[in-house]
Amino acid sequence: GNSPKNGGGKKSASASEAKGESKEESNGGGEGAAVMGSGKGQEVTPWTAEADDQFDYDVLVESFGSFYIEEDIIARVERLTNRRAHRFLRRGLFYSHRDLRQLLDLYERGEKFYLYTGRGPSSEALHLGHLIPFTLTKWLQEAFDVPLVIQLTDDEKFLFKQDLTLERCHELAYANAKDIVACGFDESKTFMFSDLDYIGHMYPVIVNIQKRVTFSTARGIFGFSDSHNIGCQAFPAVQAAPSFPAAFPVPLRGSTDMPCLIPCAIDQDAYFRMTRDVAPKLGYRKPALIHSKFFPSLLGPGGKMSASNDNSSIYLTDTANKIKKKINKHAFSGGQETLELQRELGANIDVDVSITYLTFFLEDDEELEEIKRKYASGEMLTGEVKARL
Amino acid sequence: GNSPKNGGGKKSASASEAKGESKEESNGGGEGAAVMGSGKGQEVTPWTAEADDQFDYDVLVESFGSFYIEEDIIARVERLTNRRAHRFLRRGLFYSHRDLRQLLDLYERGEKFYLYTGRGPSSEALHLGHLIPFTLTKWLQEAFDVPLVIQLTDDEKFLFKQDLTLERCHELAYANAKDIVACGFDESKTFMFSDLDYIGHMYPVIVNIQKRVTFSTARGIFGFSDSHNIGCQAFPAVQAAPSFPAAFPVPLRGSTDMPCLIPCAIDQDAYFRMTRDVAPKLGYRKPALIHSKFFPSLLGPGGKMSASNDNSSIYLTDTANKIKKKINKHAFSGGQETLELQRELGANIDVDVSITYLTFFLEDDEELEEIKRKYASGEMLTGEVKARL
Repeated sequence: GNSPKNGGGKKSASASEAKGESKEESNGGGEGAAVMGSGKGQEVTPWTAEADDQFDYDVLVESFGSFYIEEDIIARVERLTNRRAHRFLRRGLFYSHRDLRQLLDLYERGEKFYLYTGRGPSSEALHLGHLIPFTLTKWLQEAFDVPLVIQLTDDEKFLFKQDLTLERCHELAYANAKDIVACGFDESKTFMFSDLDYIGHMYPVIVNIQKRVTFSTARGIFGFSDSHNIGCQAFPAVQAAPSFPAAFPVPLRGSTDMPCLIPCAIDQDAYFRMTRDVAPKLGYRKPALIHSKFFPSLLGPGGKMSASNDNSSIYLTDTANKIKKKINKHAFSGGQETLELQRELGANIDVDVSITYLTFFLEDDEELEEIKRKYASGEMLTGEVKARL
Repeated sequence: GNSPKNGGGKKSASASEAKGESKEESNGGGEGAAVMGSGKGQEVTPWTAEADDQFDYDVLVESFGSFYIEEDIIARVERLTNRRAHRFLRRGLFYSHRDLRQLLDLYERGEKFYLYTGRGPSSEALHLGHLIPFTLTKWLQEAFDVPLVIQLTDDEKFLFKQDLTLERCHELAYANAKDIVACGFDESKTFMFSDLDYIGHMYPVIVNIQKRVTFSTARGIFGFSDSHNIGCQAFPAVQAAPSFPAAFPVPLRGSTDMPCLIPCAIDQDAYFRMTRDVAPKLGYRKPALIHSKFFPSLLGPGGKMSASNDNSSIYLTDTANKIKKKINKHAFSGGQETLELQRELGANIDVDVSITYLTFFLEDDEELEEIKRKYASGEMLTGEVKARL
């Protein structure tokens, strides 16, 4: 059930994957190291995801040292879970991973993992982009029947956003928690927490991580400068901690070595490169990851949906009518400027936001292919594609 | 009851004190700033207290921007508490302060303060030097009838000492807590905690502090380098937090603006310079401080007692016999090399460790003066002074 064209394996990465861990060992940063993911017309860090044109996701895999999710991995997920892979996997929207093969090996031998994902609460309502990791995480939880922890980094948002108060960040965490609950996770297997509430329980793991990361390394990975505050510098250990079951003695019932799988957008990888570097020094397992591409802004493919520009995003609180208006007015089109040109030349579907959104949300593979074919050939117009969306 | 010779006012500081806060504002550090308290043949930071010869405590007051505890302050403490000042105050062993006058103003107007002191648990047993702040703190608690919080920085010791495990630091905190309890604080008004246990309750205050301190500032104050770990960089906010009543909603019964007085050795001042810089930005009161001189190592006046060199320290767990041996064998003498020379020239009592210890522990002012006079004149020998000790 996996169309080759839309599958995850964008190109073969087997040569570099064969090198295994050695490829990753050089990612620890260090004195004067350039920040990973920057340069070549795009910048991708946990706080910035911008491209001059489109994001080059291959460059990110190469620069971060992760691996493509290839056909055989998706087939194996389907076999192990007895269900068709989620469309995000089938269509390569989650396209990169670390140690996913090993995680599936362990699962096959009867060792269950737990899922860890999260959200930085900087806006009252979630937008569609925020739902991407939660949507796949829900599918993974159901398919593998595993526990899940969800971190709300209200402390991070407070430390990194000059104008947000601590009280506001804590409120936003609770507001966002409601939207996340609405995703429908298995209540009996899901633990969601605000850092401000839960930090005391994770603190032993946090200081253990902090002790193994120098400022020099953190600067190399995250691009911190001397004018960042000391909380920012220390925060990566807070996002790293949930990667280790020791941070969840109660939710994970005392397990100290349960493997961890982290679904996240690829801009979060910096945290987990650091986490994976530190893990062996603590005697912990490295967490596995699967990385998504960015959910694009309505305004075009060179940015991700941002909670700070209303026109760039579709919020969960937007009415159906408002969403329709936003799409019709703002969604960046790959179609031609006139009806005649569109009929003659067809649309550039690679940069068309409506097509990208359909790729995320239209379950029917055949209908999606049909729309893409017709739109690219000029048979369909932008307005018609938007209407389907 | 305050002998001018041994009183706290080492020299007049009224000129600089008249400048008030302006003197302090320049202590925030900054890009490339030298670490305060270093240079001129001595280095005094929270992690190092060493002098080539003797410590120059006047240089520290000048460099840190604190003020001498002058005669009138001591007299006022005696008047307000209806008791003779503790010998540590009478003899200038606590010799420097910040905002002590303002704190006494508030107390006189009926506004009680709370005391905050602490200990970094790096050894199983406390030595005599560790008791100095606790001894004065106990006296202050009784004299002013005020609440007290005691912080055990097990997280700090773990982050700063390469070879200590987290479990060990936590154990040491509990071991040290027993020695501290033995000082006899008022149980109903004292709250002692390990950071590892209590951090969750202080975290909102901690991130509020961290947000207002840049790495650049922390480096200026504490001398951090790029190779320090990110936990070290963030830790100063953990030691700062108990300076604000918001960190103790239960122990201080919801008070949000109770003034704070911190008795500590002067090497800890760096933390509280930072704390006092940040306080107004948070809408909090600056904590007041009283600073002690160092309790000297047995080995001489140029170092403080160190928990890491057994011969330098007298531990609370040492037997009476062992203490006697340590003093006789190791206590640095200001006496002359031969009996004849001592009778002729007398001892240099400024560097004599036995005399310094008697200054800390011999309550009788007249007997102390008598011993110092006789020893300095050659009438008494080192062995006789040690015997009294």
